[in-house]
Amino acid sequence: MTTAPHALAVRAAALDAAAPLGHVRERFLLPDGVVYLDGNSLGPLPASVPPVLDDVVHRQWGTGLIRSWNGHGWWDAPARVGDLVGRLIGAAPGQTLAGDSTSVQLYNALSAAAALRSGRPLMVTDPDHFPTNQYLTDAVARRLGLSVHRVRPTGLPAFLAAEGDQVAVVGYSPVDYRTGELHDMAVLTEAAQRAGALVLWDLSHAAGALPVQVDDLGVDFAVGCGYKFLSGGPGAPAFVYVARRHHADWRPPVTGWNGHADPFGLHEEYVPARGVGRGRIGTPPVLSLLCLEAALSVFDDVDLTQVRAKSLSLTGFFLHCTDVLLGGLGFERVTPPEPERRGSQVSLRHPHAYGLVRALEDRGVIGDMRAPDLLRFGVNALFTTHRDVLEAVTCLREVTAKGAYVSAAQGAGTVT
Amino acid sequence: MTTAPHALAVRAAALDAAAPLGHVRERFLLPDGVVYLDGNSLGPLPASVPPVLDDVVHRQWGTGLIRSWNGHGWWDAPARVGDLVGRLIGAAPGQTLAGDSTSVQLYNALSAAAALRSGRPLMVTDPDHFPTNQYLTDAVARRLGLSVHRVRPTGLPAFLAAEGDQVAVVGYSPVDYRTGELHDMAVLTEAAQRAGALVLWDLSHAAGALPVQVDDLGVDFAVGCGYKFLSGGPGAPAFVYVARRHHADWRPPVTGWNGHADPFGLHEEYVPARGVGRGRIGTPPVLSLLCLEAALSVFDDVDLTQVRAKSLSLTGFFLHCTDVLLGGLGFERVTPPEPERRGSQVSLRHPHAYGLVRALEDRGVIGDMRAPDLLRFGVNALFTTHRDVLEAVTCLREVTAKGAYVSAAQGAGTVT
Repeated sequence: MTTAPHALAVRAAALDAAAPLGHVRERFLLPDGVVYLDGNSLGPLPASVPPVLDDVVHRQWGTGLIRSWNGHGWWDAPARVGDLVGRLIGAAPGQTLAGDSTSVQLYNALSAAAALRSGRPLMVTDPDHFPTNQYLTDAVARRLGLSVHRVRPTGLPAFLAAEGDQVAVVGYSPVDYRTGELHDMAVLTEAAQRAGALVLWDLSHAAGALPVQVDDLGVDFAVGCGYKFLSGGPGAPAFVYVARRHHADWRPPVTGWNGHADPFGLHEEYVPARGVGRGRIGTPPVLSLLCLEAALSVFDDVDLTQVRAKSLSLTGFFLHCTDVLLGGLGFERVTPPEPERRGSQVSLRHPHAYGLVRALEDRGVIGDMRAPDLLRFGVNALFTTHRDVLEAVTCLREVTAKGAYVSAAQGAGTVT
Repeated sequence: MTTAPHALAVRAAALDAAAPLGHVRERFLLPDGVVYLDGNSLGPLPASVPPVLDDVVHRQWGTGLIRSWNGHGWWDAPARVGDLVGRLIGAAPGQTLAGDSTSVQLYNALSAAAALRSGRPLMVTDPDHFPTNQYLTDAVARRLGLSVHRVRPTGLPAFLAAEGDQVAVVGYSPVDYRTGELHDMAVLTEAAQRAGALVLWDLSHAAGALPVQVDDLGVDFAVGCGYKFLSGGPGAPAFVYVARRHHADWRPPVTGWNGHADPFGLHEEYVPARGVGRGRIGTPPVLSLLCLEAALSVFDDVDLTQVRAKSLSLTGFFLHCTDVLLGGLGFERVTPPEPERRGSQVSLRHPHAYGLVRALEDRGVIGDMRAPDLLRFGVNALFTTHRDVLEAVTCLREVTAKGAYVSAAQGAGTVT
């Protein structure tokens, strides 16, 4: 065991030397002494953000005042930033919009999708889907008098074979936020649509982390958040994608004045704007939106197939390190070993998950946990190194072997 | 007429010398050479904002990373900032929440209010209400199978006498956003509630501009925006107020995970948080939210009765200046002359409204217009001076007399 760490260090160095995108790490202002493996929850600060925000605050808001709605392009920002995200998810321009939270976008998109398949009484979602997706599927179904069936992605084809003609909407995430398991978007999209249902993907854990091709796959709707792999800042605006073929017919229920066909005409009756633009609701949070725009410049000249290749190298090395270093310490590997079934994170199960994550944090290694017993480590190929991975697993080995984890009672209240 | 300008200048100086809150102007970073009379659309930059945002970006996000959700109080920000707004609208702590846009807050609050009066088939709103209020009242009514009646505030008592027992919710603004007319919140709240209806006030043009007492008046629900008189920045988060007596029963339809009773338990079923907290939806835009929090410090030690007194002095002087300087130039005064019927703005009608506002802007006097023919000038007693007012009306006289206004054709596209 004494030679294993050295061999791993040599291997990490070799993998880092061979990996693409090494120069992109400089685009982030990462704090010294920190190994950050929680970019799948909150991306770190891109270097491009502070000067833009400074300009937005002082010159655009402070000096331009109300004139900046046109003079500095604030009014067009939801569409402009949406298209920047669209580029990362394989959406041609004019189908993606940035603004509001993922939850609000989900409510509007799920409602609109279900209404486009009226007469079909079922909505399908994943029992392992992030809670807000489940709550909003239930809320929309209740409102429209539909039922919700919770079906794991692996069981979807069989379920659809039996009851597919009853299904209005299938809403899934390509990446399980707890286990990091990657589902096949092409297979599931095709299965849902073959049954006549519409499909809504939540890309929160996929956008910016791996190549997604919503246009090519014929996805109907997608949403996602701006603050994970897009590094748009805490609570950055979300996005919604609506395939062009639905632009004439989709009807989001939250009809704010920004989504009116003629918003400054101040009409009494709502007439929806053309296309995805009717997904705009109220005035967007401009500071947060322009911060997201600035953050997206880290993707300039970045090839997402390289991002994916490096991400798989990082998670593969992570799993290798856990095999070598964490044996006999009570960990269970949760993330699938097969590359094609892995998102951009590694999850491990351990009864002291909470205390271990806290103990790692005290030593500068930041991951997170999900109740009750999952440790979650996200890699972001734009800045994570194989050396980071080795340092994290080595640290995890130390704190576990020493029993140096913080008990829940000691650390109550720290939840992220 | 040659002596009138001098007399007005003397009067402006005397009024400014006598007015309270003169020292508060320094709390804003107003650009040189600009008379800003559009704080009712977008408040100017408070001096307190840049250092806070700098800290939020570099120290909290950049260095604290995910840890700042607890370490820097991000998670509690919606309630904390909500209470700061609550102080300005007469709400005891724990009833006001900041986040999302006014439109989204309206959708949730209108839906919840109507559901609390189920069995009553009517929703009442003002035909002169801001469009988003009308669109969302229509949307909520359609969803719940209700009808919408548009009744001007002056006609409300008569309408309620006839059909009050049919009315579920009355949704008004105390200030008409076009004319600046102030309606009596106490009278209308009492009338609606006597009929058994609930009342929802949109305080976008009142919060921070005049004393509002939602608790004392027994208001049921209120919403409002953060970027007008609260000067929270472009698209700053909105707020919602829910009277404590409704906390157990109100059910916002957009049920995001932030509003769950145990958000980090990651439960499959939605269980609403207690109180106003269930109004939280998704992850809030932290940068914009903390910017609003910083901006609200301009109200420290400010007495809203002084704000109101000074605002009335400013709008009164504005009307006086229009009488003296704008005679025979084609203007019609729209804002009521009686102080008790005036909000914190002056509106004038002129067939060349658009071109005049553009011409004023070219000369550093910033107001705005609302289609088709209203010029709108907001005063904010925290920074507007009587001298500003005189300068604006003098400039308006000059550009009108010279016919120096920009035609709509020349300036198409500038809409704010």
